[in-house]
Amino acid sequence: MPILNKDMSVCISLSARPSNLGTRFHNFLYDELGLNFVYKAFSTDDIEGAIRGVRALGFRGCSVSMPFKEAVIPLVDIVEPSAAAIESVNTIVNDDGVLRASNTDYEAIAALIASNGLAPTDRVLVRGSGGMAKAVVAAFRGAGFDRVTVLARNEAAGRRLAEKYDYEWVGTEPEHVADIIVNVTPIGMAGTDADELAFSEAQIERADTVFDVVAFPAETPLIAAGRARGARVITGAEVIALQAARQFERYTGVLLTDDQITRASEFSRAE
Amino acid sequence: MPILNKDMSVCISLSARPSNLGTRFHNFLYDELGLNFVYKAFSTDDIEGAIRGVRALGFRGCSVSMPFKEAVIPLVDIVEPSAAAIESVNTIVNDDGVLRASNTDYEAIAALIASNGLAPTDRVLVRGSGGMAKAVVAAFRGAGFDRVTVLARNEAAGRRLAEKYDYEWVGTEPEHVADIIVNVTPIGMAGTDADELAFSEAQIERADTVFDVVAFPAETPLIAAGRARGARVITGAEVIALQAARQFERYTGVLLTDDQITRASEFSRAE
Repeated sequence: MPILNKDMSVCISLSARPSNLGTRFHNFLYDELGLNFVYKAFSTDDIEGAIRGVRALGFRGCSVSMPFKEAVIPLVDIVEPSAAAIESVNTIVNDDGVLRASNTDYEAIAALIASNGLAPTDRVLVRGSGGMAKAVVAAFRGAGFDRVTVLARNEAAGRRLAEKYDYEWVGTEPEHVADIIVNVTPIGMAGTDADELAFSEAQIERADTVFDVVAFPAETPLIAAGRARGARVITGAEVIALQAARQFERYTGVLLTDDQITRASEFSRAE
Repeated sequence: MPILNKDMSVCISLSARPSNLGTRFHNFLYDELGLNFVYKAFSTDDIEGAIRGVRALGFRGCSVSMPFKEAVIPLVDIVEPSAAAIESVNTIVNDDGVLRASNTDYEAIAALIASNGLAPTDRVLVRGSGGMAKAVVAAFRGAGFDRVTVLARNEAAGRRLAEKYDYEWVGTEPEHVADIIVNVTPIGMAGTDADELAFSEAQIERADTVFDVVAFPAETPLIAAGRARGARVITGAEVIALQAARQFERYTGVLLTDDQITRASEFSRAE
């Protein structure tokens, strides 16, 4: 066993209920690339104390998940514009004591919109109004989409999000059919109502692209339904791997190949 | 490579200039015993923030070295009597958010006095008046020694330490010859004047037991001189291994055999 050493750079994650995914993804690549880094997930009930600890112990990086993505903003020194715009941080890099915050969820979604060639003229229906929905909606706006509808039960949050980007809010699924449907709610996540779908069968039937941000399982009922109909599918597993890769690159300065990202993602999910 | 997982218990050390010794000692035994623990040394310039981080991130244990052994006392919840008496903490155990501090240097020295069968009627000469000297002098008092002399250039610190235990302070080496001589200064440490001895040749020649708390190298000039004369020798390497073992046991709840301690110590020093 390679024994840890005192000079290793340390990266951590902070969330209410950590999964093993980040810990396995990052350490897999540290090992493969021979980097003197180590990564470990933590939960905390004292986010201020945890960030104080990041500074005091000189951790190189800190990934941030629910429910701390907004709470860390006043605790860092610099917030990159794309994270500030959506008031959501998922990545903190510590450069000699200066904490710089960014949002690689936003970057990952923007990259998937581009790499899948989604057309800005397409109609988009996004379901959800939470922190991740902010990243999704901002990424579609950033990619030049004009026809996006935010579907959210929470009218206040839904309206706020939609109007911020000059989009439309609806409280129930609209009659018109979207080309691209995006689920950014927990519907379909392991442990929830496993069979539930975030959209009606009619919507799923007509969409060219089915995008589900739920990462566990990768094959949600929505993704399975889209795949069965021959739609292009984009999974939450892709989002989570890509955002982790962008974090990895910021922490280590090493750019990853698509193949490395794929293998690290597979390793991280294989338990 | 065994990849870290999110559920690992984390132990750390805090010091101004960490060595690799603790990191290697503890991780070697975690691996050998199959414990889901990981240990990493850190330095800090914010001891309060570091201890705040220990709490916020739920670290299981925190070893404390120079120059923080006294500074951490107001930052913990419980200080065990043996550590409180010498105002020096080197071990913090986190039991569900309650930080309990102790001093395993004291325990290690007390154990070495006992295991080497040192006689309480013997005359002892201790050179030094710093944090570790406090642990040494307290351990001799605890073992029932009445005739201990503290040799220290710093009169204020030397007198305070000696008088606290009803011992005698001297500023220069006394005429009388001690049976047991103990160096608790950095003299003989790697990087210092390598050939210097903490005691005169006359003292070394007459002592039955030569005890050097300097751990790097294990074979200091003083230890080498004692060994050459056929004296019983007790090395700083023994102290540091034994105090680390007592920390390990407190962090993990697993008692170590002498053989395990010896092998972990050898591994920790073999770089």
